[in-house]
Amino acid sequence: MRNIKLTLAYDGTEYAGWQIQSEQATIQEKLQQAIETLTGERAHVIASGRTDSGVHALGQVANFQTESRIPSDRWVPALNGELPPDIVVRHAEEVDAEFHATYAAKWKTYRYVIYTGDNRNPFVRRYSYHVLPAVDVQTMQIAAQRLMGTHDFRCFETDFPNRASSVRTIYALKLFRMASLPTWFDDAIVPQPEGPFIALEITADGFLYNMVRAIAGTLLQVGLGRWPVEMVPTILASGERKEAGPTAPACGLFLVHVEYEAEHP
Amino acid sequence: MRNIKLTLAYDGTEYAGWQIQSEQATIQEKLQQAIETLTGERAHVIASGRTDSGVHALGQVANFQTESRIPSDRWVPALNGELPPDIVVRHAEEVDAEFHATYAAKWKTYRYVIYTGDNRNPFVRRYSYHVLPAVDVQTMQIAAQRLMGTHDFRCFETDFPNRASSVRTIYALKLFRMASLPTWFDDAIVPQPEGPFIALEITADGFLYNMVRAIAGTLLQVGLGRWPVEMVPTILASGERKEAGPTAPACGLFLVHVEYEAEHP
Repeated sequence: MRNIKLTLAYDGTEYAGWQIQSEQATIQEKLQQAIETLTGERAHVIASGRTDSGVHALGQVANFQTESRIPSDRWVPALNGELPPDIVVRHAEEVDAEFHATYAAKWKTYRYVIYTGDNRNPFVRRYSYHVLPAVDVQTMQIAAQRLMGTHDFRCFETDFPNRASSVRTIYALKLFRMASLPTWFDDAIVPQPEGPFIALEITADGFLYNMVRAIAGTLLQVGLGRWPVEMVPTILASGERKEAGPTAPACGLFLVHVEYEAEHP
Repeated sequence: MRNIKLTLAYDGTEYAGWQIQSEQATIQEKLQQAIETLTGERAHVIASGRTDSGVHALGQVANFQTESRIPSDRWVPALNGELPPDIVVRHAEEVDAEFHATYAAKWKTYRYVIYTGDNRNPFVRRYSYHVLPAVDVQTMQIAAQRLMGTHDFRCFETDFPNRASSVRTIYALKLFRMASLPTWFDDAIVPQPEGPFIALEITADGFLYNMVRAIAGTLLQVGLGRWPVEMVPTILASGERKEAGPTAPACGLFLVHVEYEAEHP
């Protein structure tokens, strides 16, 4: 049995998220169908994490077991030939049998994109959240620093999965303006002093359900001048979801990168 | 009676073009519905030209007559409140009674966007045409210069409207690489020595049916090394549509700007 690791990008707009559902199209379903068409086997694909309905990925990682003898360098064109245009396999490789896309993940980076143009823009609406122009990114950055490190982040968790622990560690949390939406997978994003887009990038050892979108919604309250910076540590200490800001819409959220242990390349 | 001039942007992916049809959604239909909702009057909106199914606009211009007393500066927010998210009114002003968006146009600029990444990209697929990476832009530029000036361009006309004359004047024809897709309406496009996107921009006094897409398809044959540069003047002289290259797909085409006589601002 071979274990194949895939790196995927997708426009999540038309999908009810990663996980298979009976009624709506999902990323997992489309990917499993593509693998089944190619191999003739039943496929079960495991992702680093389940992205929600409408959430995008630039570097989702997944793996699956197969008896197929398709060579490693043929998986990318073969799968892309079967997948719809809004899902693409960027990289495929055979990894050792123990690699598990969910459990082997060391850390992940998500990006939340906000658009502050004074008029709505049809060409970025699928990939950003449009808010009023008067957003103070410097103040958001100061507030964001209060979230760095290891905390119980349950105030930013939608209570659905009820995990055993809601303690996570945020390693990096950056906020910056951009002149345009990054549309090329590996765009080296150059922060700009001006520009209609704001990116919030969070790297952590794990994320609670809706955590990035709740943090984005909370920091926006600060950036729009509705809440002082000091609200952020108060919310964190409260442990209450109702104290934090609203969950920002899915369209602005991108899973950017998943990092694994070096021994599982 | 007032005459209102609008500047519009739209993502044409979901529309059967500008002109009203009985079965499919069109830009004209959505705009007339929005005006009718606001004014209670029957509306007839005239555009600078009918964009085809799937074609986008950054600066389409249109006008309509109304008895409504909505002030000029209220049309933009009022119409955008009624329009779907993929159509936006960017500017509105009252103009003199003689202004006609079709007949008063002096020249127009279209942009055709080609994407040459070695893998398909879900985030640019609606707004560009994906071709093989090996496109020689310098050679396309040399070939493009053979189209400058006043010519009978019937070799690039899909024969549908059968116009009286197919003589047009191309004032400017530029080809350049871009690092990313312009997503902000008025992006000042900075040509780059490298980058996965190629833009073809044509400014002319008028365009035949499918002319820009046929020119793009023809220049691509040269850029991909299939045809020599000298094919371009030969095709132009032939006056035969079958001699020219294929019509490139609608998704790459943007109506960028329409210029009017100074007396009709």
